[in-house]
Amino acid sequence: MIVGNIHMIISRELKAGAHPGDLLALLEELSPVEKAGVLERLSESETALIFQEMEDYEQAELLRLLSENKARQLFRGLASDDAADLIGELTADEAREMLSSIGLDESLDLSDLLKYPEESAGGIMTTGYISLPADITVEEAIGRLREIAPEAETIYYVYVVDDAGRLSGVLSLRDLIVSAEGTLIKDVMRTNVISVNADLDQEEVARVVSKYDLLAVPVVDSEKRLLGIITVDDVIDVLEQEATEDIYRLAGAGEIEGVELTEAKVNKIVRMRLPWLLISMIGGVISGSVIGVYENTLEAIVMLAVFIPVIMDMGGNVGTQSSTIYVRGLATGEIEKEREWAYFSREVQIGAVMGAFCGVLIAIIALLWQGNPYLGLVVGISMFSTISIAAILGTVVPMACNKLKIDPAITAGPFVTTLKDVTGLLIYFMIASAFLEYLR
Amino acid sequence: MIVGNIHMIISRELKAGAHPGDLLALLEELSPVEKAGVLERLSESETALIFQEMEDYEQAELLRLLSENKARQLFRGLASDDAADLIGELTADEAREMLSSIGLDESLDLSDLLKYPEESAGGIMTTGYISLPADITVEEAIGRLREIAPEAETIYYVYVVDDAGRLSGVLSLRDLIVSAEGTLIKDVMRTNVISVNADLDQEEVARVVSKYDLLAVPVVDSEKRLLGIITVDDVIDVLEQEATEDIYRLAGAGEIEGVELTEAKVNKIVRMRLPWLLISMIGGVISGSVIGVYENTLEAIVMLAVFIPVIMDMGGNVGTQSSTIYVRGLATGEIEKEREWAYFSREVQIGAVMGAFCGVLIAIIALLWQGNPYLGLVVGISMFSTISIAAILGTVVPMACNKLKIDPAITAGPFVTTLKDVTGLLIYFMIASAFLEYLR
Repeated sequence: MIVGNIHMIISRELKAGAHPGDLLALLEELSPVEKAGVLERLSESETALIFQEMEDYEQAELLRLLSENKARQLFRGLASDDAADLIGELTADEAREMLSSIGLDESLDLSDLLKYPEESAGGIMTTGYISLPADITVEEAIGRLREIAPEAETIYYVYVVDDAGRLSGVLSLRDLIVSAEGTLIKDVMRTNVISVNADLDQEEVARVVSKYDLLAVPVVDSEKRLLGIITVDDVIDVLEQEATEDIYRLAGAGEIEGVELTEAKVNKIVRMRLPWLLISMIGGVISGSVIGVYENTLEAIVMLAVFIPVIMDMGGNVGTQSSTIYVRGLATGEIEKEREWAYFSREVQIGAVMGAFCGVLIAIIALLWQGNPYLGLVVGISMFSTISIAAILGTVVPMACNKLKIDPAITAGPFVTTLKDVTGLLIYFMIASAFLEYLR
Repeated sequence: MIVGNIHMIISRELKAGAHPGDLLALLEELSPVEKAGVLERLSESETALIFQEMEDYEQAELLRLLSENKARQLFRGLASDDAADLIGELTADEAREMLSSIGLDESLDLSDLLKYPEESAGGIMTTGYISLPADITVEEAIGRLREIAPEAETIYYVYVVDDAGRLSGVLSLRDLIVSAEGTLIKDVMRTNVISVNADLDQEEVARVVSKYDLLAVPVVDSEKRLLGIITVDDVIDVLEQEATEDIYRLAGAGEIEGVELTEAKVNKIVRMRLPWLLISMIGGVISGSVIGVYENTLEAIVMLAVFIPVIMDMGGNVGTQSSTIYVRGLATGEIEKEREWAYFSREVQIGAVMGAFCGVLIAIIALLWQGNPYLGLVVGISMFSTISIAAILGTVVPMACNKLKIDPAITAGPFVTTLKDVTGLLIYFMIASAFLEYLR
């Protein structure tokens, strides 16, 4: 009964002009089998509208539950980039079956797309672009656009290719509209085309589109042959996804590959978050063993323990600040390779200034609290050293990771935490041991 | 000499079709006065191309250094949203002077824009949209587009307004191109227009554009009158800026309002980062005083101190994971208000599972390390409780902030850190005191 009603609501709303994305929420609470039931009852065009709004893993799940006929129909209706993503979620057998359901041409297009890694320009591009020869007139071009428009992902850019399929120019629909009649394409096209290579990382692609305010960017191979385009709506998805990935990695909350962290099951989330905790636990035990080494010092002056939290917290905060600013600066392109050392030396200064400020403050607090000027001195110097070193570690560790082609967002958290804890505690107890006789 | 050469390079490259954004790098190392010198020597159109690529605070600095004539010329050439941003960077006198340099119509447009907060839809919209009446034909519409195109920010959407200026429909250029000749606008326009209210937060605007894959979204007032549009390139900037803001806030690295954290001067950065450190220092001192309360327990068993770092680190990590996933889920819209409690109860389960796992593990480590099964028990129970509570605090604190309309990204860091440190240490020492006689 419920399934029947939802299908009627969706159908009615689509006719009334509702956006299919808004109607997905109606399916959210249904089981996959119920969802498939709803889709089976919708018309071909209605199903297609709803289906293309779904995430690829959800689509794959549904394809297995739908009748063969419906499944093939839906698959044929997808844009080439979405179809390629969906193929990636299917088993080899399922993929072969789906590919056999579409024409040879499209199938070849698709297998081209599948050659590229999922997070590269080639992996996110679509082949639904419009290309034209250079020697037709503006009116002929508009005429062709009229015919091709329903198939194309975007008609706002038209690409000009030579006989070898090499990209030789680009025209916006705006250029076409404002050009005088009879003008040849080659006389109005821009030859200085901004394009990306098929193996460029999707984050770099997004940066190009964002920098030049493009609505789409063409993807070419090493011989400059036009392979596909990436449209701005996909770029927005990439930017959101990459920002989320960085945020989760910085927090040591694990990978999000194909999982919505806010939706997934408990055991799935635990499996993602636990590894970071275990690394952190090893770090904590190592830091604790530093305290173990100075057991005698601590035994002599138990009150030294009350400053362990503040030294650890402050080092942790400064390290997190430094590594976060560096990692985000890398991601947005604000930090350029050539200026890294200028950036580093500024960070050293910042660490020293903040360390001096906090060091003096905590020394005064320690003096007033415990009434011992030497304790103030020990805690103050330790605070200064810990903060200075944390700022350096928080910059150098992600910098080194970046050099070694390891994602700095992953390692920034646990490594920096352990390193600054160990050094902070070592400094604190070394200085305390040196001043031991004055502390009693 | 240098200034002269750079002006020649820029001029030559612009003629050769280089993107002005790429040429900004040439100015980067110059002083403001030198930059102004370069701009003075470029032609009107060349200066305009370079100037509009700059950040608003850089533009404001340059306007003060340029000749009055050049400054007015540049200001007139800006799109209305960029002009409004620039006005925001000027003093009241400077703004009045600039506004007097443009025509009354444009000046009124601009003062409309200035009414809205900088981070609202009204604050980021541009008035460079194209609106048409409903009863003209498709050809007439294309004819008008030809005339207006050079002025408009985007021509890919055309908005249809009634006599009262209310938004009644939208057409894409694609719709216009594929419609049969002689068709009236009102017969092809979509009447179900997705629009945003002028006071909607820019982050929500970005979410609408991203969700519906739009190239631009119209901005309306409470009576549905069309005020302006927001184009997708500005939406990309908003998404990047909001992600950066969240990342910095989560790390307690301060506000970025008008400052590039990777570029600014040392004292400026210190002023932004230091407040978070001071909050954190207070938190650390409070945590330390918990240890102070249990001085006698610690004096009896000094080795209890070696587990302080691991308990603090693990609580910190789990708290950060939980609050980060929650804050990012809110920002991307993955967490919906109605389902918050389902999300919370899942987080409680995750905390308990991870706490149990880590609790058992650290108990074994403590037993093997210190050879005392009771110590293992104390440390294990403390670890389990700390992790469970950290997961709850890491979710409840940002949840409460969100309810109270405080940005959860700001408070997630320092509050959660202090709360979980205090509770973690309290639990640890309470349990240890209870088992004291078995620990000796």
